[in-house]
Amino acid sequence: MHIGFLGLGNMGAPMARNLLKAGHSLTVFDPFTQAVAALVEAGASAAASPTAVAKAGVEVIVTMLPTAAHVKQVYLGKDGLLAHVGQGVLLIDSSTIDPLSAREVATLATAQGNPMLDAPVSGGTGGAAAGTLTFMVGGSVSVFDQALPILSAMGKNVVHCGSAGNGQVAKIANNMLLGISMVGVAEAMALGVALGMDAKVLAGIINTSSGRCWSSEVYNPFPGVLDNVPAARGYSGGFGSDLMLKDLGLATDAARHARQPVPLGATAQQLYQTFSLQGHGGLDFSAIINLFRREA
Amino acid sequence: MHIGFLGLGNMGAPMARNLLKAGHSLTVFDPFTQAVAALVEAGASAAASPTAVAKAGVEVIVTMLPTAAHVKQVYLGKDGLLAHVGQGVLLIDSSTIDPLSAREVATLATAQGNPMLDAPVSGGTGGAAAGTLTFMVGGSVSVFDQALPILSAMGKNVVHCGSAGNGQVAKIANNMLLGISMVGVAEAMALGVALGMDAKVLAGIINTSSGRCWSSEVYNPFPGVLDNVPAARGYSGGFGSDLMLKDLGLATDAARHARQPVPLGATAQQLYQTFSLQGHGGLDFSAIINLFRREA
Amino acid sequence: MHIGFLGLGNMGAPMARNLLKAGHSLTVFDPFTQAVAALVEAGASAAASPTAVAKAGVEVIVTMLPTAAHVKQVYLGKDGLLAHVGQGVLLIDSSTIDPLSAREVATLATAQGNPMLDAPVSGGTGGAAAGTLTFMVGGSVSVFDQALPILSAMGKNVVHCGSAGNGQVAKIANNMLLGISMVGVAEAMALGVALGMDAKVLAGIINTSSGRCWSSEVYNPFPGVLDNVPAARGYSGGFGSDLMLKDLGLATDAARHARQPVPLGATAQQLYQTFSLQGHGGLDFSAIINLFRREA
Amino acid sequence: MHIGFLGLGNMGAPMARNLLKAGHSLTVFDPFTQAVAALVEAGASAAASPTAVAKAGVEVIVTMLPTAAHVKQVYLGKDGLLAHVGQGVLLIDSSTIDPLSAREVATLATAQGNPMLDAPVSGGTGGAAAGTLTFMVGGSVSVFDQALPILSAMGKNVVHCGSAGNGQVAKIANNMLLGISMVGVAEAMALGVALGMDAKVLAGIINTSSGRCWSSEVYNPFPGVLDNVPAARGYSGGFGSDLMLKDLGLATDAARHARQPVPLGATAQQLYQTFSLQGHGGLDFSAIINLFRREA
Repeated sequence: MHIGFLGLGNMGAPMARNLLKAGHSLTVFDPFTQAVAALVEAGASAAASPTAVAKAGVEVIVTMLPTAAHVKQVYLGKDGLLAHVGQGVLLIDSSTIDPLSAREVATLATAQGNPMLDAPVSGGTGGAAAGTLTFMVGGSVSVFDQALPILSAMGKNVVHCGSAGNGQVAKIANNMLLGISMVGVAEAMALGVALGMDAKVLAGIINTSSGRCWSSEVYNPFPGVLDNVPAARGYSGGFGSDLMLKDLGLATDAARHARQPVPLGATAQQLYQTFSLQGHGGLDFSAIINLFRREA
Repeated sequence: MHIGFLGLGNMGAPMARNLLKAGHSLTVFDPFTQAVAALVEAGASAAASPTAVAKAGVEVIVTMLPTAAHVKQVYLGKDGLLAHVGQGVLLIDSSTIDPLSAREVATLATAQGNPMLDAPVSGGTGGAAAGTLTFMVGGSVSVFDQALPILSAMGKNVVHCGSAGNGQVAKIANNMLLGISMVGVAEAMALGVALGMDAKVLAGIINTSSGRCWSSEVYNPFPGVLDNVPAARGYSGGFGSDLMLKDLGLATDAARHARQPVPLGATAQQLYQTFSLQGHGGLDFSAIINLFRREA
Repeated sequence: MHIGFLGLGNMGAPMARNLLKAGHSLTVFDPFTQAVAALVEAGASAAASPTAVAKAGVEVIVTMLPTAAHVKQVYLGKDGLLAHVGQGVLLIDSSTIDPLSAREVATLATAQGNPMLDAPVSGGTGGAAAGTLTFMVGGSVSVFDQALPILSAMGKNVVHCGSAGNGQVAKIANNMLLGISMVGVAEAMALGVALGMDAKVLAGIINTSSGRCWSSEVYNPFPGVLDNVPAARGYSGGFGSDLMLKDLGLATDAARHARQPVPLGATAQQLYQTFSLQGHGGLDFSAIINLFRREA
Repeated sequence: MHIGFLGLGNMGAPMARNLLKAGHSLTVFDPFTQAVAALVEAGASAAASPTAVAKAGVEVIVTMLPTAAHVKQVYLGKDGLLAHVGQGVLLIDSSTIDPLSAREVATLATAQGNPMLDAPVSGGTGGAAAGTLTFMVGGSVSVFDQALPILSAMGKNVVHCGSAGNGQVAKIANNMLLGISMVGVAEAMALGVALGMDAKVLAGIINTSSGRCWSSEVYNPFPGVLDNVPAARGYSGGFGSDLMLKDLGLATDAARHARQPVPLGATAQQLYQTFSLQGHGGLDFSAIINLFRREA
């Protein structure tokens, strides 16, 4: 198929490469020309603007952008996709944005005859490169079925979450819980060790008890408990604290609009905000444990 | 062996019965005489006071009491165990109390020649009846080895957590994380559903993603997601909200003494405190989700 | 002067009446026609749309709208003020909205030759009726000076807070602190009384000590401490809990965009969110103390 | 009168000096012998132990100790005051401790014929030296009247707060609110300035609006707003962050025992705990604003 791809950052570039590898023809755009050049070298065609992608005769367009403001500009702006794309072209937005914005764009797209899905991902840059991302997809079943082969070229796990915007809902609900769990594990591990326990023994007990969770078992933030996690390498790599801060912001903002209390989500957001202000937003999100440990 | 047992409440009574079933001889005390009578009918001998238990020629004494104040009274009071028990008798306190109090009693016991362990449990009244409790044990390795056969008669999983008090540390660290996770799952599920997702679909995504945890997988608080959990039966049974409140209080209090920040633990404590004040302390602790859902 | 006025709700209507009383000529618009009719009876002219107000030959336009979305629609929409208003007409937005939106609108207005101020108010419907509002004004000094006579017809206290958007900043910073103080007073009063103190004695001590604040001295939430406050009349009247919730939402949202931690502000927001979900959003904001008191 | 005085620290020493200045005869004890020597030089007699003070023929004993554990030891220990003091001697404890401990000691003292008051102070070391402390006093009216002349020699403001323990209740309720207010002011000032406002202008608006409070008007934490406050001298002097942390700990602990929610109090406690862990516990408590400001 002929696919348009906008947004060739840390996530978008490897995703686009996997579409090329699967045999699709790609027309790509990114304001950062070096990112475009790299994809062209891999076999893609370059487009000079979103409008140019829309007019390139593509059957599908995938977008991977940093914020809702970017998504609105790319889709709804004067020179944006909706103003220039042909009827029937399938639109897939894999950006992580708030559900309200996702629904607003999808409603406008659908109204003018373009089926649209929100399809945010989890799995990080590693999963993007390996083609093992999880896609959480919102939109109608028939459009989901239509998109499945394309998404499967970039991910291993493609889950239908319900109607438009629900991909975003699933993403922010899960990631809010992830942020809460990670802070909770950090507090519990730091407390237990401060009270005299060995970190590995404590993690072992938690992991076989009612406190067990992904953050404790797979991604424990206490140094020395697990190998091959960011805690074992000075919290480099992984999922950045500022990205967790962004997702907690999306979740608490959506909660505000829905008038839903999320007291632990809001407190976790404030902790990552504090951590970021102290200059540590670039560290992996498990480094939040440093808020609870005396300087070594 | 001849074992003394003090504290025949919802947990202590079935634990004592399992010791009888394992062939041990029991001398029991509880201020509530009906609780004593029931155990006597099952084969135990009654004692009229802690002093009487201490003087009954027992080799081991197990205590299962509601608070640190009770533990201090029973062990350290004028008529308490330490004042009257023979040298060498093994003391095992299975109450859930703060680590500082546990260490204070253990230090005094050890100093006068009575080996002592703190051995709080998890598993609830069901685990107590079935003999499948988990024991988290603090004390020296040799005393742990000595106690293992006795504890194994009451539980399935007996874990050595390090020196005196560390059983309590493991218990409160795990349960603080449990309380945080449960509130986190409650917030995430209520938010996702309020934003338009189906509860089962959302739980399915969380349980295969980075948000997964015991509270979501095994004990999901949203009604209709799982069968055979308190959420499926109006939040009756299970682990009461007021018991979670007690454990969160022990954890935040220990954190205060250790000068360790536990912001999510403290917020979770306040939420259970609010829930209790509103009259719901008797409901299972997963009912905390009702703080985040509009009255049905 | 000939002044346009858009937004004739609980606040806007009495503000417009005070402009009429001061001798100004008014052209008004509100989608709710009864609100317009009432002002027409008082001497104003009716306009059928924002466009009509813009084209009515007014020298000044004042807007008093519920949300940033309304402000953007009224100013920036196709049929909005900026598209139709003559150059040089002074624009004053008295809505309480987020500073970013206020700055966005002011920048566009200024760029096309319309001086603009953000001028949110405090003082409630009582102050609006009595003409004793406080205006917190953002914009250049010269525009502020130009607007002073008009604002003075509606308020007693008109404060210049700096450049565009700073009126909103002052409003949300003050109201976030107000929300925090009110919850703090509620917690302290409820705790003191639960521990055995007389509410009036406690308030007296606080009001002569370092805990004193407007929420304690002037607006104490504990029933029986002050007369003539909402706490003395079942929390009716006053400043609604849902309005405090809105302002706390604006503050935490602005904090999120500025990456500023506001942990108490965020917690206060969650408490008002919980209170609103429980169905009490219509009560005065001092009723939040009911979250901390056992049902009478 | 002949007065015993125990606890000659930063607060106790100047308080004892004021009693000497008022013409009273003093017998003093402190484990730190240099502190005793300094008072002896000022005219007091030294005692070698609490027992010695109790047996020195004093009519009144005043204690000023750091924690409830010290108070219990000094009053209730084997060599403590209650075991050796003559009937009728008036006991005044000016330590800041939890109300439950205060009531426990007062009940035992009263039962053996020693009238007792809890009389914690506010006003800091400056007020202690100047004799301008505020005393918040719990106990019966007649005992309060009896103690008034003695307390008036050390303070300017002596307030009867109700029965035994209520002095402590008033102190911790006020100081919890103080801690909340200070953090609230810090958040609001930091947010407003981050959003573009001048700190002095913002403080001026808050101080004439509903956000005004002691922490903003008298003790503003933002540097440059006020002279002669800790913020103007690098947060040296004043009321230490670790002392605020202690008082917030007493308040949340009392709330836990009373089953009262104090969500902002608990969050404020966690923030001071974090600040202390980061090594800043010795700075004035208004320095908490540094948690919310980017490193200069």
